[in-house]
Amino acid sequence: MKLICSKSNLLYGVNTVSKAVPTRTTMAILECILIDASSNEIKLTANDMELGIETVIDGTIEENGIIALDAKIFSDIVRKLPDNDVVIETDDSFKTTITCEKAKFNIVGKSGEDFSYIPYIERKEPITMSQFTLKEVIRQTIFSISDNDNNKLMTGELFEINENQLKVVSLDGHRVSIRNIQLNSSYDYKKVVVPGKTLQEISKIIPGTTDENVDIFLTGNHIVFEFNRTTVVSRLIEGEYLRIEQMLSSDYETKIKINKRELLSCIDRATLLVKEGDKKPIIMNVTEGNMELKIQSFIGSMNEDIDIEKEGKDILIGFNPKFFIDALRVIDDEEVTLYMVNPKAPCFIKDDQGSYIYLILPVNFNNVAN
Amino acid sequence: MKLICSKSNLLYGVNTVSKAVPTRTTMAILECILIDASSNEIKLTANDMELGIETVIDGTIEENGIIALDAKIFSDIVRKLPDNDVVIETDDSFKTTITCEKAKFNIVGKSGEDFSYIPYIERKEPITMSQFTLKEVIRQTIFSISDNDNNKLMTGELFEINENQLKVVSLDGHRVSIRNIQLNSSYDYKKVVVPGKTLQEISKIIPGTTDENVDIFLTGNHIVFEFNRTTVVSRLIEGEYLRIEQMLSSDYETKIKINKRELLSCIDRATLLVKEGDKKPIIMNVTEGNMELKIQSFIGSMNEDIDIEKEGKDILIGFNPKFFIDALRVIDDEEVTLYMVNPKAPCFIKDDQGSYIYLILPVNFNNVAN
Repeated sequence: MKLICSKSNLLYGVNTVSKAVPTRTTMAILECILIDASSNEIKLTANDMELGIETVIDGTIEENGIIALDAKIFSDIVRKLPDNDVVIETDDSFKTTITCEKAKFNIVGKSGEDFSYIPYIERKEPITMSQFTLKEVIRQTIFSISDNDNNKLMTGELFEINENQLKVVSLDGHRVSIRNIQLNSSYDYKKVVVPGKTLQEISKIIPGTTDENVDIFLTGNHIVFEFNRTTVVSRLIEGEYLRIEQMLSSDYETKIKINKRELLSCIDRATLLVKEGDKKPIIMNVTEGNMELKIQSFIGSMNEDIDIEKEGKDILIGFNPKFFIDALRVIDDEEVTLYMVNPKAPCFIKDDQGSYIYLILPVNFNNVAN
Repeated sequence: MKLICSKSNLLYGVNTVSKAVPTRTTMAILECILIDASSNEIKLTANDMELGIETVIDGTIEENGIIALDAKIFSDIVRKLPDNDVVIETDDSFKTTITCEKAKFNIVGKSGEDFSYIPYIERKEPITMSQFTLKEVIRQTIFSISDNDNNKLMTGELFEINENQLKVVSLDGHRVSIRNIQLNSSYDYKKVVVPGKTLQEISKIIPGTTDENVDIFLTGNHIVFEFNRTTVVSRLIEGEYLRIEQMLSSDYETKIKINKRELLSCIDRATLLVKEGDKKPIIMNVTEGNMELKIQSFIGSMNEDIDIEKEGKDILIGFNPKFFIDALRVIDDEEVTLYMVNPKAPCFIKDDQGSYIYLILPVNFNNVAN
């Protein structure tokens, strides 16, 4: 194999597919990036068997062939090359020479034949949205997936398509994040659970512009994302996602309008008194026109008042401050509305248009301590 | 005690003195920042018994007093306060209230009486240089101090003043870095060894402008740096610094002029084939008009040619690539000159004005392997 392409194209391709290289694996071939120049295009592929990424880069093929190169070493080399044309040449024993200007690297690759290509998925009826929208909706929900594998479904996100609505849901047993997106066309009803890791990697590699789209294809077992000249194929998580409808009652006893930035900075300040692993709640004491936030730990105590608009009953309620911070950080509104029922029922942060709902379970706290 | 000062002043002061708070200590009081408002100024102090930093900040004292507050907690709180006036108030039992706008923190401090003040050093005849110069000379030499305590002197830097010349030297047994600075006045001959840690912290807290100075005072056991309203006092390292004069022979067999950026990028590229802890040398094969750089490791091999101007003999010589990278990074010249004698004698990188000398010992390498 012999091919020539610019360092910047090569680097873009390597950075894109590298996201699918497993950090730990017993199969050495999976630690490689496959360079496939066997036909008339240069295709880079990486695959950890759950998630596969493939991208086509511009360049000249002087001799067809394929080679698998250790992803870490190859990407280190590419990154450090001068900004000029790169020549990659291999021989029958997989010895690979990477030349750029006067720099010449020799490494040994592996046979491309041993590589596991990403599965071929038939693509029909793409669901289309802007790269920006997809990236945003991931950012706005990904923080509340579960990080432990006890319930595999909770490590993914529900993508539910109903006509021209996309609903994305994540939950970890203490909180639920829901975003509703308006699509430009209507589609058949579909419901899949996408692994959190896939979404995290996707949101790193899509440029996220508003004027370029990503096409999404769903099959029984796989989801495919296509954008620019990159294809991402991921397995889906099998099983029935948790029913959230019954949690989403619209009854409330207390409705609070509050400045988002003030609430966020206050909770952020309060958490510095809480050491990692120490489960001190932040306590909200909601009265007419005022929310007093209090936290107390063995380091000290903190309290602060924030002006609010309140409807309904006064309430004294405690939360894990991190859950509030996570949700408030991804809401762009200047003012947010909280809905509460009682100190043991979940609090909702939601807007009037129904574009987002963040549900946070309260925690018990010892009243005497305050 | 009760005092009022702006969050930004307080934060600047806290960040400055925090550099002298020990990370590990058995004396809890040393983990504190002392706020001393016992006279007519607000003074913050931290002291790890080797290095002490004191700074005066603007503010209003409403009630005189002193208090010692846990440095980590106090600086976390200050950092997260809104950008407004901060009120710090303490009572007889060292309970401390920190209030800013509507946020109110309560923490418990310690008696300021238990705090170890920084030693009083008589200041006469300051050595004066711009903050920029001091910061630069530290950056240009600090990387070659020794990081192990076997030879305490090598963990510091020699500051030698001879008339209007300041010479700064650091060495670790494999290399020597020397910088010569022209001072604006002449001073009595002095020679001290300053702990590396002191210099690292100093270079973090001096703003480093060219139009503001730092005054340096030397005594038998201490060095004092004074700038803006901050005083840094450090112990010196006792003992006789290694004599470097005999190493600095000016004989050479090979003289090489080379583009610094090209050499640095090439060595930087080469090192990606070397894993941490793996002692693979970079080999320079110097011939007429050309330097070939080669490196070989179990990952692969790399070679690259660089145009040079050469005087004298050809030479094949190997070096620890890190030592070359460290030295080249802090040289601002576009072109550098290397002086070599033979493959077992040190290489010098130095300029004609004598403002810097970097001496690097070569390493043995197996000729056959190349």
